Amino acid sequence: MIAPTALQNRTVSEIGEHALIARISGRLAMPPWVVVGPGDDAAVIEPERGALDVLTVDAHVDGVHFDRRFVPPDAIGHRALAVNLSDLAAMGAQPRAALLSLVLPGDLETAAVDGMLDGLMALATRHRVALVGGNITQSPGPLMLDVTAIGSVRPRRVLMRSGARPGDEVYVTGTIGGAVVGLRSLQAGGSKGSFGGSEGPALLEERYLRPEPRIRAGLLLGRNRAATACIDLSDGLADGVRQIAAASGVGIVIDESAIPVADGVREYHSGHGHDPVCAALAGGDDYELLFTARPSLRGRLRAVRQHVGDLPITKIGVVTNGSQLVLRTASGDRDLPAGFEHFR
Amino acid sequence: MIAPTALQNRTVSEIGEHALIARISGRLAMPPWVVVGPGDDAAVIEPERGALDVLTVDAHVDGVHFDRRFVPPDAIGHRALAVNLSDLAAMGAQPRAALLSLVLPGDLETAAVDGMLDGLMALATRHRVALVGGNITQSPGPLMLDVTAIGSVRPRRVLMRSGARPGDEVYVTGTIGGAVVGLRSLQAGGSKGSFGGSEGPALLEERYLRPEPRIRAGLLLGRNRAATACIDLSDGLADGVRQIAAASGVGIVIDESAIPVADGVREYHSGHGHDPVCAALAGGDDYELLFTARPSLRGRLRAVRQHVGDLPITKIGVVTNGSQLVLRTASGDRDLPAGFEHFR
Repeated sequence: MIAPTALQNRTVSEIGEHALIARISGRLAMPPWVVVGPGDDAAVIEPERGALDVLTVDAHVDGVHFDRRFVPPDAIGHRALAVNLSDLAAMGAQPRAALLSLVLPGDLETAAVDGMLDGLMALATRHRVALVGGNITQSPGPLMLDVTAIGSVRPRRVLMRSGARPGDEVYVTGTIGGAVVGLRSLQAGGSKGSFGGSEGPALLEERYLRPEPRIRAGLLLGRNRAATACIDLSDGLADGVRQIAAASGVGIVIDESAIPVADGVREYHSGHGHDPVCAALAGGDDYELLFTARPSLRGRLRAVRQHVGDLPITKIGVVTNGSQLVLRTASGDRDLPAGFEHFR
Repeated sequence: MIAPTALQNRTVSEIGEHALIARISGRLAMPPWVVVGPGDDAAVIEPERGALDVLTVDAHVDGVHFDRRFVPPDAIGHRALAVNLSDLAAMGAQPRAALLSLVLPGDLETAAVDGMLDGLMALATRHRVALVGGNITQSPGPLMLDVTAIGSVRPRRVLMRSGARPGDEVYVTGTIGGAVVGLRSLQAGGSKGSFGGSEGPALLEERYLRPEPRIRAGLLLGRNRAATACIDLSDGLADGVRQIAAASGVGIVIDESAIPVADGVREYHSGHGHDPVCAALAGGDDYELLFTARPSLRGRLRAVRQHVGDLPITKIGVVTNGSQLVLRTASGDRDLPAGFEHFR
């Protein structure tokens, strides 16, 4: 008989595809609307009555979206699902199900697979997302997780990027810039290292490692029809502003002093010789919601604030005619800096 | 001004993520039930009235599922979608939509991306599948396409792996073993090479490069309630038999002489010193449907045959009590050989 620790240290090549699938399927409980769960050619679910299906997919690649050297397995699993739930949140959708496509190097230890599943399932359970299917295959290169998330939304509650109109106000949830500083801290050896073990950096690292998708805020914005346009900040605030403006055919002015930069971010960037606001605008991975709202409908936004708990919602700018993207600062107006783009 | 040929030869790094997405989105037409198509945080579609959602995902990795050295870009795109449509077919589902997650090496030429899209879209158009969304990211390793396919099926028409009962007959669509021989031929330099340019090898190569998912057969089996269990042969006939038997808790006897081995397959394997039937049983990539049917309901199967066109449907075995998997040959019974498994 093999001791449990020895089993833990076996690689995915050693245990094989079928055993891996059985290992994952064994820990999944299915809600009653899942007609066929994992283990068949495809999953079958009942759509929610009277609602639309919302579908999104995002790949999570080692060396691009995370680095296994300092992102623990549970955080890899958490992030792979969180980025997709964040996309659903930005549409005002209620998440329901997910598919997980795992592309694994043969020498990966099964303990790492278990850890990724732990992180993914903990977040899924918290948001009542059923992992209804997926696929495991071998990678001749990096570890990759591709998650498809499925949600539902009522027809008149869909949030899109294209509804912003001149005069609308621009809002953002939570705080900005923390994830990138958390990432830099992790790259430099973690909060026990260059940051001296104070609580701030550990919190920012957590922002990077285990971002909290703003599901509830998105649902409330949709249900109250409080937003005219919405996007999640996967690629940074500057990119989000740019995307809403382009999709809506409008300009946007952002007030630099109003941006809710996370605690510790200004200090970090100043200490490293960066322009703090520029860095906060360009950095991705925050997974907050950026949205626009009509000033005449502020009562709807008030209803959202009342039910969203501690999450700050901050006015940071205004939608304008034309197509200019402007950052208003104490020393005058300037062009909004660019956001993050893959292959650039 | 840059000449069109120079543009064609630019890499994905040179044109960037946003231009790539625009390039892909520009060629997509959306049916009326797509509420939000590509370009927002997620896609939104109307579920089909009275039907269930069917969901599947499969990764397609260079060096594992195909080899760019001898699989042209359009075939890569075709295969990435075909394997998923085949999964929907095995559930008796009508395909409706797909999401495409592209993980691209930075030095990939945009002409290769266009070619993959050509192949994927040609198959999608033929089956009226809308490409409603996706994601493009950078690969530090191999080219990868991860396709999620969404279909619909009426509640009582779902085909599963688990419904086979002792006494049922075992059937397979089309012919078996062709794709693997086509792959070997391509690996050896293509039909102009070792195969001497005759038509047979070119057809088998086509079976590997552009498999035809058996959508219509799956739909007819579901609508006529003609099958008690069904699976697609992505990992070979032996694996399919094993999966149905395991899910249904039955044994299966396959009659070797009844297996519809594709033309040229026996000759190829004999010429290379392989056991032809063993090789045909173990080889994957055929994407035919394997299903079981109750002898007392043969009328239903007749209705399927009448509407499925030229596609052969061949009886190859019978479901038994117990759990034994047997290959009945002229020289006696033997254990069914194993199928393909990742990481093995």
